[in-house]
Amino acid sequence: MIHVGIVGSTGYAGGELVRLLLQREDIQLVGLGSKSYVGAPYASVYPNFTGVLEDCCIQDDIGALAEKADVIFTATPQGLCSTLVSESLLSKTKVIDLSADFRLKDVSIYEQWYRLEHASPQLLPEAVYGLPELNREQIARARLIANPGCFPTCSFLSVYPLVKAGAIDPNTLIIDAKSGTSGAGRSAKVDSLYCEVNENIKAYGVGTHRHTPEIEEQLSYAAGKPVTISFTPHLVPMNRGILVTAYASLCKPLAAKELRQIYEEAYAGEPFVRVLPQGMVPQTRFVEGSNFVDVAFHLDERTGRVVMMGAIDNMVKGAAGQAMQNMNLMFGLPETCGLRQLPIFP
Amino acid sequence: MIHVGIVGSTGYAGGELVRLLLQREDIQLVGLGSKSYVGAPYASVYPNFTGVLEDCCIQDDIGALAEKADVIFTATPQGLCSTLVSESLLSKTKVIDLSADFRLKDVSIYEQWYRLEHASPQLLPEAVYGLPELNREQIARARLIANPGCFPTCSFLSVYPLVKAGAIDPNTLIIDAKSGTSGAGRSAKVDSLYCEVNENIKAYGVGTHRHTPEIEEQLSYAAGKPVTISFTPHLVPMNRGILVTAYASLCKPLAAKELRQIYEEAYAGEPFVRVLPQGMVPQTRFVEGSNFVDVAFHLDERTGRVVMMGAIDNMVKGAAGQAMQNMNLMFGLPETCGLRQLPIFP
Amino acid sequence: MIHVGIVGSTGYAGGELVRLLLQREDIQLVGLGSKSYVGAPYASVYPNFTGVLEDCCIQDDIGALAEKADVIFTATPQGLCSTLVSESLLSKTKVIDLSADFRLKDVSIYEQWYRLEHASPQLLPEAVYGLPELNREQIARARLIANPGCFPTCSFLSVYPLVKAGAIDPNTLIIDAKSGTSGAGRSAKVDSLYCEVNENIKAYGVGTHRHTPEIEEQLSYAAGKPVTISFTPHLVPMNRGILVTAYASLCKPLAAKELRQIYEEAYAGEPFVRVLPQGMVPQTRFVEGSNFVDVAFHLDERTGRVVMMGAIDNMVKGAAGQAMQNMNLMFGLPETCGLRQLPIFP
Amino acid sequence: MIHVGIVGSTGYAGGELVRLLLQREDIQLVGLGSKSYVGAPYASVYPNFTGVLEDCCIQDDIGALAEKADVIFTATPQGLCSTLVSESLLSKTKVIDLSADFRLKDVSIYEQWYRLEHASPQLLPEAVYGLPELNREQIARARLIANPGCFPTCSFLSVYPLVKAGAIDPNTLIIDAKSGTSGAGRSAKVDSLYCEVNENIKAYGVGTHRHTPEIEEQLSYAAGKPVTISFTPHLVPMNRGILVTAYASLCKPLAAKELRQIYEEAYAGEPFVRVLPQGMVPQTRFVEGSNFVDVAFHLDERTGRVVMMGAIDNMVKGAAGQAMQNMNLMFGLPETCGLRQLPIFP
Repeated sequence: MIHVGIVGSTGYAGGELVRLLLQREDIQLVGLGSKSYVGAPYASVYPNFTGVLEDCCIQDDIGALAEKADVIFTATPQGLCSTLVSESLLSKTKVIDLSADFRLKDVSIYEQWYRLEHASPQLLPEAVYGLPELNREQIARARLIANPGCFPTCSFLSVYPLVKAGAIDPNTLIIDAKSGTSGAGRSAKVDSLYCEVNENIKAYGVGTHRHTPEIEEQLSYAAGKPVTISFTPHLVPMNRGILVTAYASLCKPLAAKELRQIYEEAYAGEPFVRVLPQGMVPQTRFVEGSNFVDVAFHLDERTGRVVMMGAIDNMVKGAAGQAMQNMNLMFGLPETCGLRQLPIFP
Repeated sequence: MIHVGIVGSTGYAGGELVRLLLQREDIQLVGLGSKSYVGAPYASVYPNFTGVLEDCCIQDDIGALAEKADVIFTATPQGLCSTLVSESLLSKTKVIDLSADFRLKDVSIYEQWYRLEHASPQLLPEAVYGLPELNREQIARARLIANPGCFPTCSFLSVYPLVKAGAIDPNTLIIDAKSGTSGAGRSAKVDSLYCEVNENIKAYGVGTHRHTPEIEEQLSYAAGKPVTISFTPHLVPMNRGILVTAYASLCKPLAAKELRQIYEEAYAGEPFVRVLPQGMVPQTRFVEGSNFVDVAFHLDERTGRVVMMGAIDNMVKGAAGQAMQNMNLMFGLPETCGLRQLPIFP
Repeated sequence: MIHVGIVGSTGYAGGELVRLLLQREDIQLVGLGSKSYVGAPYASVYPNFTGVLEDCCIQDDIGALAEKADVIFTATPQGLCSTLVSESLLSKTKVIDLSADFRLKDVSIYEQWYRLEHASPQLLPEAVYGLPELNREQIARARLIANPGCFPTCSFLSVYPLVKAGAIDPNTLIIDAKSGTSGAGRSAKVDSLYCEVNENIKAYGVGTHRHTPEIEEQLSYAAGKPVTISFTPHLVPMNRGILVTAYASLCKPLAAKELRQIYEEAYAGEPFVRVLPQGMVPQTRFVEGSNFVDVAFHLDERTGRVVMMGAIDNMVKGAAGQAMQNMNLMFGLPETCGLRQLPIFP
Repeated sequence: MIHVGIVGSTGYAGGELVRLLLQREDIQLVGLGSKSYVGAPYASVYPNFTGVLEDCCIQDDIGALAEKADVIFTATPQGLCSTLVSESLLSKTKVIDLSADFRLKDVSIYEQWYRLEHASPQLLPEAVYGLPELNREQIARARLIANPGCFPTCSFLSVYPLVKAGAIDPNTLIIDAKSGTSGAGRSAKVDSLYCEVNENIKAYGVGTHRHTPEIEEQLSYAAGKPVTISFTPHLVPMNRGILVTAYASLCKPLAAKELRQIYEEAYAGEPFVRVLPQGMVPQTRFVEGSNFVDVAFHLDERTGRVVMMGAIDNMVKGAAGQAMQNMNLMFGLPETCGLRQLPIFP
């Protein structure tokens, strides 16, 4: 039995974590922390859990949680987790941070893009970027996981094989991403109101979105050199899902067959990455509710570019599912434990 | 291991059955019948199963299926199942019919509302109406299950306790129902196009919807006398979910507390019915993806009426989930087997 | 040229008023009042007006507005308008109040349902209920208009002919209403977030919605006796539109043909009410963006009840359009002036 | 009074044309042609016109129409219009073709991308590409207008100023476009069903979409040299609207201020193009129902690229509205006649 605590359990990512964890029999929830709903029954905050979960929300006290939790998920605003985590805390419990605090190794880049001072830069070297397809072994040994952002997860996995193989020039990469609205969180803002999002599509954070340096850092490792990309997210009137459409120039003439081979080799044996058959494109509806990443590509011979596409459920592979996948690895469990739900359609 | 065949597996209800069955380890799919997609990989029809299911669709041949299946689900157009099922077939396999063919005991009412001749009226006495909350024991012994309609499931469970207890006059019942669009099926019709359904709400089948006599028959049993109701379904721009709002006059003065007690006693121990705490109303989003039925009521002292409300996921408790719940009962398995998924939100 | 001021111009109803007024050439906007956006360009609050409207929002000062406006629309929270209007103000300008403050003649009923003290009950006798189909002549002579609520407009016009004609028993009326989300306004509330409304339907204000006494009062006038009804609104995942489904028992046997005649006579010559041909049902998509009210009925001989249905655009006929229709009448203009836009579909 | 005929009036673009034309007092509809609905009242096909339009659909006979129409709009499948139009027809009436048949000057490119033989290539030199912002004067003198595609209209107007000015390298252009579902038309296809489109986003026609050569041809004229681009459309769960996000490398270092000046000069005096203030991005909701094109750009100094964005209502500026704008020019009317509707929000 793994004892699990959550700090920031009442946001959408927290709610999804609770859903995934509650469906397992080897997990015990020992503390549902919240800032806004202390004392309220969790099932009054998320009535989908009516009759299933009796717990009330508790104060977000990570120190107290650490006394009884084997692992703590932090689903908190940027900048908070780094004030909470310390060597002392990590000596008692593992931490999987769903915020961005430990994703960027270079603290100056963090501070520049997030406009925050980092409270515990000394822990950055230890933190492991929790993308299992990349860092499976380090994750298994880690105490502190930086759970990847939703856009970086989808963007990176869509283009990684071709970057790694040197097939495309990573500095020509243009990533045009589209996200459902759950990514904006549950806070009450006019911009997130139904009537503002419905029947609309718009870009946001053009040229300034904070997931940009995270994608660049991971691509730099894959390319073995610094990578600068264009990244533009868009808000789509749907609850869940991220679709990435990425464009890059080939470095040398390659046939579609060769590109396919690169993808298939890169993801051979991966339980959650599906390289789609030729002619199929990733669609968010076919990964919804699951931890799958669907990827595909199109070689455009007219332009010498490859169009790479990927789809995830931002709440699962883009947040809570990937966090639980990391937990599985950290506790020596099968990586797919609790994550075998098939996509729900329609 | 239970060997399962499906006739009509490529409609939405068929797809949901496949999803629920595939997630179990005690089930083997032995035949995915289809009319329109024979020979096609099932995962090309429903790409959510890419990489998970290799089977191709086969001809809808129930006789051949019966040789290898322990149970066959029929998710077929009205009038077809009754031409397929026979004593001989039932001697080889169990049948759970998701169509309406065996739901009404009175063949003349079937023929009047469905404008079809019934092909095997001799099987009607044997068929069991597959609402576990009502007929758990007969279901366990049945060979032929009439899986209830989506609207009847939600309508009946919303009002049943008060009708059974004689608290309300069932002939004053007005049931105003609202359904997501998956209930209209996957056939290509202008009325089901995105642009026709989106940003719209309308009533349909006003005074003539075929689920009316099904609700009336079951209510008549509960009331111990003939019941005639008003039933109006509406089409709502969402994928899944049914909400029922039902109105009836009290037979005698009763306090809200007494009504609550009636509900709670009626559903005590039921694994899938949740009587919501006072002040909460059923919402389709909080049952989505699950087999739950959420019910609540409001006593309106001004009018002497009770407003009864219920919500289900029409694809799960309203179709495939309930069918699997029936299968569990027929095979002596725990009723909740494979049905413990929590509602997915948002 | 009519000089128009708006108090509370930055809510959704205010925005719709601005849209309708700006499209006219005989109107001059002389003051766009706001509480939250004072000083901001109106086109930054509603960017649909970019390049069309240069005005900035001003303080909500009705006294100052009255000096330059021939008419003032108040689109303000309940209870505010009655503190702003006075004999002195009405001696300078006409007022069309989109809030509920002057809709109910009986101040005690207002105070009971709205839980507010009424600040100017002495003006209630003068205020005219601004439903042109009912009160066209009084409106033309009025200084103070109580613009009807969105649900009451649609509910009343759907059932009025049969109540007036004594065809149905008004005390058996059950009105089940469905509304798009713009009715909830533009304030930032968790319940109005995209992810909370999308893929969901729920009832709200069951038995307690404030539009209930407004409908009852108007029906009482039509019936010539006190009327008590059941009214339940539902929230639908769409931006605009109200659909009403109303049920009542016939007082005496009547044929569908007779009922139709009652409707057609009641609405003969009405520019905005469309009695739909037999077999058609009102749908919100076919009135969207217009001032039309589509009504239809179904005689259910099995139950002796009539199902009456109506659809409006809650922002137009349910708010800003009807307010402008009232303005037209008050200034002796053709009633349809500026309101001839056809419904926009899809 | 202009007498107008429509061939193919019962598709979505036809319905929008009827809506825009009916709202004018200087237009008389003399023939609503249809293939599928001959003899049916037009208002039964599009019930938004109930009570407003009595006409029935007639056979799609362009020859007969030409006898009474001053102008004929053809909203027909690709390849049909070129079989209908002839010198003889054009001697009797003007033609505005909403299909692609006369958009590409090079018949071999048409035949390659559309996989159709062109039936009247001799008319291609005469046909004028009906983008008023570009070809206002030729349109005024034309008999045959090729009304631009929805994606080309939005794509071209979003990037045109910078291409024309030589600020960006047009061969680095990547256009990632997003469209509402009305663009898929009203034909009954599984892919256009509500449940397939809702809660989903996907790319389609990757590398092969037929609007690609149309955009390239117009950009080539602007650049004065051949241009090859990447173009990927996506399907978004909303009814109306196109958003374009386009990326290109600067040819030389330019400041944001200089780019803005290029845009503003290019579109000075344009009645329908709005260059948004700095910091605002185009959103489809703020042009819906109008003929506006909202454009903006972001200079990304990190990458040396410019992100150009544009939004239109695909049914108005992307189809029927632009067609009517062309009609206005051809008949010497003010270009904005009948097109001054403000965007409808929410």
